[in-house]
Amino acid sequence: MHWLKFSRLGRSEFGIMEADRVRTCRGDMFSAWEKTDELIALSEIHWETPCTPTKMLALWNNFHEAAAKFSLAIPAEPLFFVKSANSFCPHNSTIAAPKSYSGKVLYEGELGIVIGKQGKDIAPDQAASHIFGYTCVNDVTAFELLKSDPSFAQWTRAKGFDGFGPFGPFIATAVNPAALTVRTLVNGKQRQNYPVRDMIFSPEQLVSLISRDLTLSPGDIISCGTSVGAGSLPSGATVDVVIDGVGTLSNRYA
Amino acid sequence: MHWLKFSRLGRSEFGIMEADRVRTCRGDMFSAWEKTDELIALSEIHWETPCTPTKMLALWNNFHEAAAKFSLAIPAEPLFFVKSANSFCPHNSTIAAPKSYSGKVLYEGELGIVIGKQGKDIAPDQAASHIFGYTCVNDVTAFELLKSDPSFAQWTRAKGFDGFGPFGPFIATAVNPAALTVRTLVNGKQRQNYPVRDMIFSPEQLVSLISRDLTLSPGDIISCGTSVGAGSLPSGATVDVVIDGVGTLSNRYA
Repeated sequence: MHWLKFSRLGRSEFGIMEADRVRTCRGDMFSAWEKTDELIALSEIHWETPCTPTKMLALWNNFHEAAAKFSLAIPAEPLFFVKSANSFCPHNSTIAAPKSYSGKVLYEGELGIVIGKQGKDIAPDQAASHIFGYTCVNDVTAFELLKSDPSFAQWTRAKGFDGFGPFGPFIATAVNPAALTVRTLVNGKQRQNYPVRDMIFSPEQLVSLISRDLTLSPGDIISCGTSVGAGSLPSGATVDVVIDGVGTLSNRYA
Repeated sequence: MHWLKFSRLGRSEFGIMEADRVRTCRGDMFSAWEKTDELIALSEIHWETPCTPTKMLALWNNFHEAAAKFSLAIPAEPLFFVKSANSFCPHNSTIAAPKSYSGKVLYEGELGIVIGKQGKDIAPDQAASHIFGYTCVNDVTAFELLKSDPSFAQWTRAKGFDGFGPFGPFIATAVNPAALTVRTLVNGKQRQNYPVRDMIFSPEQLVSLISRDLTLSPGDIISCGTSVGAGSLPSGATVDVVIDGVGTLSNRYA
């Protein structure tokens, strides 16, 4: 199933795709929900992010090919940062170029794990049961800020400008992540194309390992990191993160 | 005024201290609220955090005395990280020692700015009008994780274990931050005692500068960083962050 959240007439709702239309639902996506008898066109909705994370954790150095290319050691444990809530923005929205930063801005297409069930110390063989589904994430980054202060790597600031954490349009359930491919297109031209199975820590491993430290809550997202091909996002560009079977997240940067 | 949030009979409420009792309120703390005619004893309540931040940003290297002691350069701009939502915990709660980390855990007593009004690109002379009040923060840190991976400083993980972001008990309004002193006591023994006026970036500067990148929302917290005296939190210890005029945040670590 492909879940989405949207607003209509100023009211926030959620639903499921049925072919190219939206079956609206009521209740709570992660617990008790039911379909209504209403089926609406996508043209009637304003996209929202498909969930509201209490936190979005995002991985650094989680792909073998990128680690080899950039001569990075394979980490012993997942290495992650937080993307702050103000960075979240929906499919089809415009990411505003920061006025307070004039350096290079990168797109980074990623697979996002959406947590469905609260958990702490989740055993590896229980991790799949805590994953509700998957979404597309663009981990937009003000690249030149990361290392601009020699004493303190500015991951939070570089990754946390307003709109730098678009995700959506859907949460896709019943997906086998190992079979997925992440592609990123800038103005229609393919810039990234990498297999999820090249991950150093798989989605199930990430959920289990990270939950040793942190309680994961319904709607939380773990973005699995990017691989090779991340690059510059010019002003005025449209960037699409395409994961067949999950969705196409499209945003303009301007 | 001293605002607080609490639960009674499983229901979340908020109120204002009147001497040693709580005047319950209804509405929204940051916009339209009114007092009820109910006045209750603190013994009737279970403490909650006094607000629910969409993000807690926390400063590194924001005090002249600590910068001098540790030979850190004065930063050109505020340097900050995020404490994730699972780290938030209220006054009087016990911070659970992580099972997944066995190294040294530090207390860091800090002054927290609580945002009252949404803002982006807030002018310096408008910053005070976006500050609702101040609270006490303990920026608990798994110190040996910070630099344990030579390729990636783990600020998020080290600062983001469950319970590592206690704040409260109150949000104090009509406070002059420059007149405040932050003290931290471990098992009743004073370990930190530093003046807020030693900050490199004042609360108003932090709000203005950070809002150039990030929209600040009501209930968001900027924790202003710690100064000298941060140290080890032994298992079984009680740690108090005391800011006269703001409150005393007390937690057990076990």
